[in-house]
Amino acid sequence: MTEKPLILVSNDDGYRAKGINSLVSVLREFGDVVAVAPHTGRSGKGCAITSETPIKVELVASEPGFEMYSCTGTPCDCIKVACHAIVPRRPSLVVGGINHGDNSAVNAHYSGTMGVVLEGCMKGIPSIAFSLCSHDSDADFTPTFDVIRKVVAAVLKRGLPAGSCLNVNFPDSASYAGVRICRQAAGSWVNEWEAHEHPSGGKWWWLTGDFVVEEQGDDADRVALDNNYVTITPTKIDFTDYALLEDMKGWGL
Amino acid sequence: MTEKPLILVSNDDGYRAKGINSLVSVLREFGDVVAVAPHTGRSGKGCAITSETPIKVELVASEPGFEMYSCTGTPCDCIKVACHAIVPRRPSLVVGGINHGDNSAVNAHYSGTMGVVLEGCMKGIPSIAFSLCSHDSDADFTPTFDVIRKVVAAVLKRGLPAGSCLNVNFPDSASYAGVRICRQAAGSWVNEWEAHEHPSGGKWWWLTGDFVVEEQGDDADRVALDNNYVTITPTKIDFTDYALLEDMKGWGL
Repeated sequence: MTEKPLILVSNDDGYRAKGINSLVSVLREFGDVVAVAPHTGRSGKGCAITSETPIKVELVASEPGFEMYSCTGTPCDCIKVACHAIVPRRPSLVVGGINHGDNSAVNAHYSGTMGVVLEGCMKGIPSIAFSLCSHDSDADFTPTFDVIRKVVAAVLKRGLPAGSCLNVNFPDSASYAGVRICRQAAGSWVNEWEAHEHPSGGKWWWLTGDFVVEEQGDDADRVALDNNYVTITPTKIDFTDYALLEDMKGWGL
Repeated sequence: MTEKPLILVSNDDGYRAKGINSLVSVLREFGDVVAVAPHTGRSGKGCAITSETPIKVELVASEPGFEMYSCTGTPCDCIKVACHAIVPRRPSLVVGGINHGDNSAVNAHYSGTMGVVLEGCMKGIPSIAFSLCSHDSDADFTPTFDVIRKVVAAVLKRGLPAGSCLNVNFPDSASYAGVRICRQAAGSWVNEWEAHEHPSGGKWWWLTGDFVVEEQGDDADRVALDNNYVTITPTKIDFTDYALLEDMKGWGL
């Protein structure tokens, strides 16, 4: 008898979010699912880990083939503690999402959903992040399901190279122009802060901002999303700049 | 009259740390310095940003050619708010550190010091992270100063390619075998959590762990550090896996 694949799931919007519960409903078609997700929203936490306080994990739902745990840590912590103390066997797949919001371009560095997936990848497990370009807490995730099924089936069958994971983003759309394999788009944030007066005096800053795409290549993920493509950006944990490495050997340092 | 370079500094150990104050003392030889650093330790925060609360910034020291600000945000937030509201002109350089602790290998993803530098890099400013392989809050940073001077002088003169930054790590040693230009070492964490009983009952987990280097190449940063070399790992914000990108075009997704 072949054991079913075990799929470990997390996100950065918290275990109650519609996105993770939609994702779990699709992934259960492929095997047993264990979800370990933050107890509240932890958006923008990137690969942050919790070293200065302990974390707590609680079982919040359990049925045959599925368990959901709430964790007071970051998205990375969720995968770390799940692998250390929760999963009954080595997961075949780590999946992050479905995020409420875009994680394309350089925003992959800030993304807690990508934190989930980079952590899974560092543990040598094929890992996939799914994000929808909508921050609506009641967004309709059903248009994403067919592509999620195809990508999950392909990765379960083929695996991924060691040290690489996938960052999949969906346009906020009822149907798509297609699926495009992309690179990370160049871009940057401007107008990042709003100043407010605290009721007791003093200035406080709220993070906000506009993301400016700094290129037009149709293989750049953020550009393809704007053209209504689902984008898959293969992403490496080794972010060495090998060209600069060779060049710097001549710097005489 | 040529304007002096402006150097923007931050860290993840907080503005009072010996590491950042040692770094500032060296960088002031090169130009005007503005430091905007977390008000307390924010180690392991990676590229986390603060989106769910506002942040506050306070001037804590000021003299000709130098200002230090304390910021309640993450290391990335410090650079974001500094560029938006604090620096009097565009910085010539963003520098993170000197971190109390190693940021080599895959740990670059968790590092708040690298968060500083990746953020500077995303803003198009040449950026350098310095870290010492010692967690001692009273570590002796003076052995690092000569190499810091060389690296800073070289980057001020030559610049860095757009989208690339430097991750410099120092062995905990009074003198070094040399400086080596390296790639990010492969490795992973094991034994990551310790379980403790909470006084009111229930299990809590503290993050701990052992880092296992999974290769022996002497151009891998963690390996070279173990051989008493100062390591410089050129690092890109674009972490697309271009080989997998080409391969996946044949997956039929």
